Amino acid sequence: MSAPAVLPLSIIARELSRLRTSNPLVHLLTNEVVQEISANVLLAAGASPAMIVAEEEASSFAAMASALLVNVGTLYPARETVMRQAVLAANAAGVPWTLDPVAAGALQYRSAFCAELLGLSPAAVRGNASEILALAGSRTSVRGVDSTAGSNDALDAARQLARDTGAIVAVTGETDYITDGEQTWATPWGHAMMTRVVGTGCALSALVAAFTAQAPKRLNAVAAACALAGICGQRAQAASKGPGSFKPAFLDALYLLTPEELLEMT
Amino acid sequence: MSAPAVLPLSIIARELSRLRTSNPLVHLLTNEVVQEISANVLLAAGASPAMIVAEEEASSFAAMASALLVNVGTLYPARETVMRQAVLAANAAGVPWTLDPVAAGALQYRSAFCAELLGLSPAAVRGNASEILALAGSRTSVRGVDSTAGSNDALDAARQLARDTGAIVAVTGETDYITDGEQTWATPWGHAMMTRVVGTGCALSALVAAFTAQAPKRLNAVAAACALAGICGQRAQAASKGPGSFKPAFLDALYLLTPEELLEMT
Amino acid sequence: MSAPAVLPLSIIARELSRLRTSNPLVHLLTNEVVQEISANVLLAAGASPAMIVAEEEASSFAAMASALLVNVGTLYPARETVMRQAVLAANAAGVPWTLDPVAAGALQYRSAFCAELLGLSPAAVRGNASEILALAGSRTSVRGVDSTAGSNDALDAARQLARDTGAIVAVTGETDYITDGEQTWATPWGHAMMTRVVGTGCALSALVAAFTAQAPKRLNAVAAACALAGICGQRAQAASKGPGSFKPAFLDALYLLTPEELLEMT
Repeated sequence: MSAPAVLPLSIIARELSRLRTSNPLVHLLTNEVVQEISANVLLAAGASPAMIVAEEEASSFAAMASALLVNVGTLYPARETVMRQAVLAANAAGVPWTLDPVAAGALQYRSAFCAELLGLSPAAVRGNASEILALAGSRTSVRGVDSTAGSNDALDAARQLARDTGAIVAVTGETDYITDGEQTWATPWGHAMMTRVVGTGCALSALVAAFTAQAPKRLNAVAAACALAGICGQRAQAASKGPGSFKPAFLDALYLLTPEELLEMT
Repeated sequence: MSAPAVLPLSIIARELSRLRTSNPLVHLLTNEVVQEISANVLLAAGASPAMIVAEEEASSFAAMASALLVNVGTLYPARETVMRQAVLAANAAGVPWTLDPVAAGALQYRSAFCAELLGLSPAAVRGNASEILALAGSRTSVRGVDSTAGSNDALDAARQLARDTGAIVAVTGETDYITDGEQTWATPWGHAMMTRVVGTGCALSALVAAFTAQAPKRLNAVAAACALAGICGQRAQAASKGPGSFKPAFLDALYLLTPEELLEMT
Repeated sequence: MSAPAVLPLSIIARELSRLRTSNPLVHLLTNEVVQEISANVLLAAGASPAMIVAEEEASSFAAMASALLVNVGTLYPARETVMRQAVLAANAAGVPWTLDPVAAGALQYRSAFCAELLGLSPAAVRGNASEILALAGSRTSVRGVDSTAGSNDALDAARQLARDTGAIVAVTGETDYITDGEQTWATPWGHAMMTRVVGTGCALSALVAAFTAQAPKRLNAVAAACALAGICGQRAQAASKGPGSFKPAFLDALYLLTPEELLEMT
């Protein structure tokens, strides 16, 4: 199979334009650590986050949101129950939902929950190579996670996971690969600072969820979210001295970037 | 009824001076997403936040704090119980408490809890137009929330809510209105960036709570909190490129602003 | 007893070098408010944080981490259970764990839990003067906490607490004292901004935990963590206008500081 093509800037521009126009309301069921940065990334990019966590409210809210994110980073049973209910309500209402399987494969409890969630028709899954390999393994009974696996191995696993679940699968790293199992985009805007600021990956998953809202072509929407985070991350890294100044610069870049500017990039 | 008068800078200066001298200890029972920014806003302005959330501690701490904030943004039953107990303990000890009714009117569970809390003598209520309209409706059996309502409608609702509950009611937006049901102040320092950074409204409610501590005239204290957030927000917006750089600039502005400087503004 | 000696820069450099090489995985069981800044401080300095909070996972994760932090800032019973289990698992696996006794002495519930935890062989304890005095009192039946106590009193309490528990005890303030009960280091890099940004003390405790991982001499490791936070805090304060710009500057300073640079300081 030939190397995946790089996502064209024209698609990123079109998807960003769509996000800014539609301003989707995104229900975030995410982990304790990254709630603020996730919400701020959505607000900066042009979506509206809402964190509704009670059993009493989560199902009805998921059904009226434009999209839902489930992130298992600080999973515990009460939150697990709410996530399951919200996913079922989203599915019943036709609201797309995204899974961020934080540390799947490394810990049994969350791995089992992620395996269950994969059977509930996620619109998108966003993880790093280890997580995607673990999820693919959990569906095909391979032995476990090779944490030193290269991106090629993760790409094959991502394709298989996409075919098995019907989700768009994004495996992110220095180069991100986004696949529906047949077609695959590469977004090559990785940068080192992303690993020095907590929540950048989780916030990207929130952005992926936002882009899935009423997307005409979901593969392009998810790939655009990854590309946008990468491009703005590179800009922020160039404009900052370290991880502290990176975060405000990243949010500013997300806010300032326009579709027109993307079309003029070379 | 004539248009509300703009809060004089001399009152803002006096109230800020009082806050800096008294350094009130504010018990924050707020939502999961905004705890850090709420605490940092209080520290920057000159108050001391404390987040004490266990049933085992919240009542006794509320009784010894200078003020209490209850924010229902990520309400769930265990936290609801703690909030109720803290409010009752605050009332018994004569500690003023402030309600931030996040998304009241949009979701039944929190709306019912907010309606209950309104019967427990809040010192202040801070919300946006939709929330204040919903709260006023919940007291008077009107049909629901008009989310497209103008500020005039919300102002009438705020006045009624203040008269019904005895609370100072602040309805915030481009112009904030702060009323005790008879007298009303306007604070016209709104700015667009406030809606692009998560927790700015919630942190303002924390600041409102801080200013209610031992306030000689509670209406002036609440209005000064709103004015301070607005003035510092405008300064931060002028000094920043986007929502990322806005937040540190906003905290710096709160820290740097002096009563003397307010008196020299025109 | 003569005044404690200032920790030599050569020791700080050596300990920082060790941290950067080993990149320890630190299990943070910390409070709701400071999770993001704690994680970001570790990432900036050169360690890897992980927040695993479920009963189903915390014990097994604590056993495979390089170090564990327990911070009781927003303690409640479910989290208390997880903390106890994680500490026992860490002890069984030989993983060092650090206690941050936030507000111990001021509130009964957490004070009792901290007293219990002190019997479970912490590797390090990091607190302010009031907290260390309270902990020492809880072990020796002295009357209570004198919140106006000077650092000399806290230093004696710290020494006693270290001898009683076997932990390295760090009492932090304008000057930090770090003691094993016999030998004591002073780190005199305090700065005012630390008290205006929420979580700086809690994040220092996370850093202390990171430095305890496989430390050849634990006293030096804990002292180096305190020194590093102080030195970078002073740099950040010099580079910032207020508490808002302090935080990114602090994280940048932690990221940029090198062992070589420390050796050239005078």
